[in-house]
Amino acid sequence: MHIPSEQDFIQQLSIDCVIFGYEDKKLKVLVSTLNFNGNFQALPGGFVYQNEDIDDAANRTLKERTGISEIYLDQFFVFGKAARKNQNFLDELIRLNPQMPFDGKQNKDQYDWFTKRFVSIGYYALVDIKKVIPMKTDLDKSIQWCNVYELPDLIIDHNEIVSKALESLRLNLDKKLLAFNLLSETFTMKEAQELYESIFNKTFARNNFQKKILDMDVLERLEKKFTGAANKAPFLYRIKDKAKADESPKMM
Amino acid sequence: MHIPSEQDFIQQLSIDCVIFGYEDKKLKVLVSTLNFNGNFQALPGGFVYQNEDIDDAANRTLKERTGISEIYLDQFFVFGKAARKNQNFLDELIRLNPQMPFDGKQNKDQYDWFTKRFVSIGYYALVDIKKVIPMKTDLDKSIQWCNVYELPDLIIDHNEIVSKALESLRLNLDKKLLAFNLLSETFTMKEAQELYESIFNKTFARNNFQKKILDMDVLERLEKKFTGAANKAPFLYRIKDKAKADESPKMM
Repeated sequence: MHIPSEQDFIQQLSIDCVIFGYEDKKLKVLVSTLNFNGNFQALPGGFVYQNEDIDDAANRTLKERTGISEIYLDQFFVFGKAARKNQNFLDELIRLNPQMPFDGKQNKDQYDWFTKRFVSIGYYALVDIKKVIPMKTDLDKSIQWCNVYELPDLIIDHNEIVSKALESLRLNLDKKLLAFNLLSETFTMKEAQELYESIFNKTFARNNFQKKILDMDVLERLEKKFTGAANKAPFLYRIKDKAKADESPKMM
Repeated sequence: MHIPSEQDFIQQLSIDCVIFGYEDKKLKVLVSTLNFNGNFQALPGGFVYQNEDIDDAANRTLKERTGISEIYLDQFFVFGKAARKNQNFLDELIRLNPQMPFDGKQNKDQYDWFTKRFVSIGYYALVDIKKVIPMKTDLDKSIQWCNVYELPDLIIDHNEIVSKALESLRLNLDKKLLAFNLLSETFTMKEAQELYESIFNKTFARNNFQKKILDMDVLERLEKKFTGAANKAPFLYRIKDKAKADESPKMM
């Protein structure tokens, strides 16, 4: 395991990525099981090279795990409590992995570097899950999609980071049509509603939902979906203008 | 001038505060003229002590300059480009202030510390301008409210930080009734409209504005404002529930 040194990276600063995908009517998050003895599960994350923009550091982390680089990505919050430290996680890691070279004696500088308080910049990403094949790095024993409402215990404050990302996503849905980044290019009204329901974790009345979405005047209606039964087939929609969907419409 | 050392603060991390006030129908920002030879104008900012939450660091900075501690404060963006450096500002500062002890020779470590790339967390604050008496610190020659649309050239990327803060504020106005933090406790509908107009830098149709604000169902109508001419006097309003106004109403 390569432990970064202070020469490589900005000290005490990290990036944590909440990568949202949508599948089987469920909102999911990409979670790594770390490549150590013990059950350590974590969000994909990393550090920022001295010569790297923070957005590039987040994109690099995402690309390592998803293989794709054109991802909708947003800073959503900085986790900066003074009490936010890796110490407990690291002590437990070393207890269960005594063979590690990273034992606090042979590599004291590296250990000290990593046990300091870290300020972490949270990013969330929205991906079309069908385009992603989760990929392991050296740090991952495995990597998998987890239902956002049934997450395991994650290290440090990563559960809190997911909650905050979800809160930010909900807040932003109104302003920006972000959610559609989670669907394929075309979708039915029912699929759109199911997506919103999974994000808000509640059901909406069909007529209200449809009216609200159509009132936003951002969807383009296409041909009917081919189902074999032409009369009952639902219409397909797509976002009128993808650039516009990522922009925020003006308020008043 | 006390230059912080790496022992005191998290390295390469800073806080910059955009403090919004509202006066004479104008949206204003608190700007410091730095206490050096030359015309260096800057946002109030600072660094984060090793044992300090980032929010506390922002509050400390605000309290030093405004004297008040109960301020509406929000993280809005992290400025983290690799090219973001103090170097040019610092070189110019030293050129115009050759008498400074902080000359890159006698205090090389401190100079090196400060010339590194900094990642800056942007906060914006909304204050009732009548409650604030801008206060100088050792770092400030003077400190004053500036019209947000007529700002002078600020150091480093501080003009960009203000633009981004304003953009975030506009985005958040819909969700949260943040704007009313800029007014006194009671206000007329006309005053509310003028406030929104100053923030969006455009005019709104009176009937539309009133309907939109009242539809949000967050204002409480009080008695008529005392003007001496009872018939024409406008009603006063206040936020029904201050806690609610800072919260985000649910989307659907």
